[in-house]
Amino acid sequence: MLKTRLDLDRIRTARRVIDPMFLDTPLFRCDALGRPLGCAVSIKLETANPVRSFKARGTELVASRLSDQGRAAAVCASAGNLGQALGWSGSRRGLDVTVVASRQAPAAKLDRIRALGAELELVDGDFEMARERAASIARQRGIRLVEDSRDIETCEGAATIGLELARQASSFDAVLIALGGGAMATGVGHVLKALAPGVEVICVQPHGAPAMTRSWHQRRVIATDSADTIADGVAGRYPIPAVLDDLLKVADDAVLVQEASIIAGMRMLLEHAGLVVEPSAALGVAAILEDPDRFADRHVVTIICGSNVDLNNYHQWVRP
Amino acid sequence: MLKTRLDLDRIRTARRVIDPMFLDTPLFRCDALGRPLGCAVSIKLETANPVRSFKARGTELVASRLSDQGRAAAVCASAGNLGQALGWSGSRRGLDVTVVASRQAPAAKLDRIRALGAELELVDGDFEMARERAASIARQRGIRLVEDSRDIETCEGAATIGLELARQASSFDAVLIALGGGAMATGVGHVLKALAPGVEVICVQPHGAPAMTRSWHQRRVIATDSADTIADGVAGRYPIPAVLDDLLKVADDAVLVQEASIIAGMRMLLEHAGLVVEPSAALGVAAILEDPDRFADRHVVTIICGSNVDLNNYHQWVRP
Repeated sequence: MLKTRLDLDRIRTARRVIDPMFLDTPLFRCDALGRPLGCAVSIKLETANPVRSFKARGTELVASRLSDQGRAAAVCASAGNLGQALGWSGSRRGLDVTVVASRQAPAAKLDRIRALGAELELVDGDFEMARERAASIARQRGIRLVEDSRDIETCEGAATIGLELARQASSFDAVLIALGGGAMATGVGHVLKALAPGVEVICVQPHGAPAMTRSWHQRRVIATDSADTIADGVAGRYPIPAVLDDLLKVADDAVLVQEASIIAGMRMLLEHAGLVVEPSAALGVAAILEDPDRFADRHVVTIICGSNVDLNNYHQWVRP
Repeated sequence: MLKTRLDLDRIRTARRVIDPMFLDTPLFRCDALGRPLGCAVSIKLETANPVRSFKARGTELVASRLSDQGRAAAVCASAGNLGQALGWSGSRRGLDVTVVASRQAPAAKLDRIRALGAELELVDGDFEMARERAASIARQRGIRLVEDSRDIETCEGAATIGLELARQASSFDAVLIALGGGAMATGVGHVLKALAPGVEVICVQPHGAPAMTRSWHQRRVIATDSADTIADGVAGRYPIPAVLDDLLKVADDAVLVQEASIIAGMRMLLEHAGLVVEPSAALGVAAILEDPDRFADRHVVTIICGSNVDLNNYHQWVRP
């Protein structure tokens, strides 16, 4: 019996709370992408919604719960996508949302957080600095601190992707999941291990931000001093112990990829699938590029988790 | 009582034949795009599938019918998207598919038609030349000629988009539909006029390929001598009388847009929605750009009908 912080019944119930706009996202085989990668590739597309990432699946649960509890405000630290999603879900339910982000976060993400009506506070330093500041705002104002991956709603929301994959799991062999804090990996992983145990759950993280992957391999929390990757969505340094515990139960592997592979992955997704994606969403393709023998002739699903990218950076990256 | 070649019951039945992968596509409000356009914009995204356009909704019906009839082959002329879609639907059902296309069609579309296992024959001249050649192949080989817009299945397939829009029609005021042969406009238009008559149905065509729009305004078929537009997907010259008859009943307006607006539309869809689209899919945004007062503060749906674009051309178009 699979024991993690997640629960299948709660995840199924979550589907009734999340705005349907974020559910049942496209899942389709993309042979034009699979051909150069030497395997069958299916894309699970999480970007065709108002926040352009999967994160609203979780913030819908958070905001709905806060609203049920009569709470009026919430704060989160965000690399960009969680802030947009919480801004969207919060504004729909009359919640005041404060987002703390690093000044280094992509300008496009910051602009969109503001446009969603959230209060945006910028801090010097990286995502972990933003996390500290958000915690301090929550204490001062007595409001809910929303923490990605730590808060079970964020994992349960992401886990609804797993339900959608499990419906068609008989057709594929492995799923590649971008690994940051671990909400998506533990959520999707839990559902697949419960409903489709034959599917290999492979987490992918950049070499430049390897904390959770190293922790998974050593089976204990390994923090890192810095994070240096273009994949801003997964650039955490302090793995959360409870999330690592779950990840150890549901992931079959965790691999690291080079920045050059992430860029090559973004370029291939544009050229062969017509998709503009943020770097985190290209981690799966990067993993196939770095280890083609592992995936040869298998059917692999990669979750395209976000498309919030600064176009100036993007054009420089994908330029041939 | 709305009388066109289309029938609501048949369209509803079509949903049971079309691979679910092509149905229930994302429909979401994109404020980042609406803000610079001065109205609320929702996107109906028809590109997240193996053929990157809406055309498979129709070819699924065609191929299924041929297969039920024990037929083994079909031929079509295509500007690119119909050929891919018929290739996909045909190969799933063991049909030999021949596609005739203009040598001027985007290389990306031609490559993908070949990759889908269809036999590709290229002709000099434009789409109308391809149409003649396809008809002659059909006669010679005694096989089914699949004609976009003329064949009712292509309209019924497109009409299933209308069913999906009608479910949420209370929230929007107008829908912008790319107009070429008229399958999408008559199909979606029929369903909306039947189920949501308050929604304004606006067809959009390039000034460079205005045959159907001119015909709609003059209420009789007007052919043109040439078609000159980057929107290759809608570049027909000979409107089909029966399709025009239907369009006269279901469209509230048909407007023409400049090439520069199509390009600006593609650029805005990339910048504000993160979407790579082919020119035909930007016609709706182009229409808003050319007549912002008409749409000010209204809620408009634009159907993003395809993303099969040559990236070299695309980069030149959207370059700031």
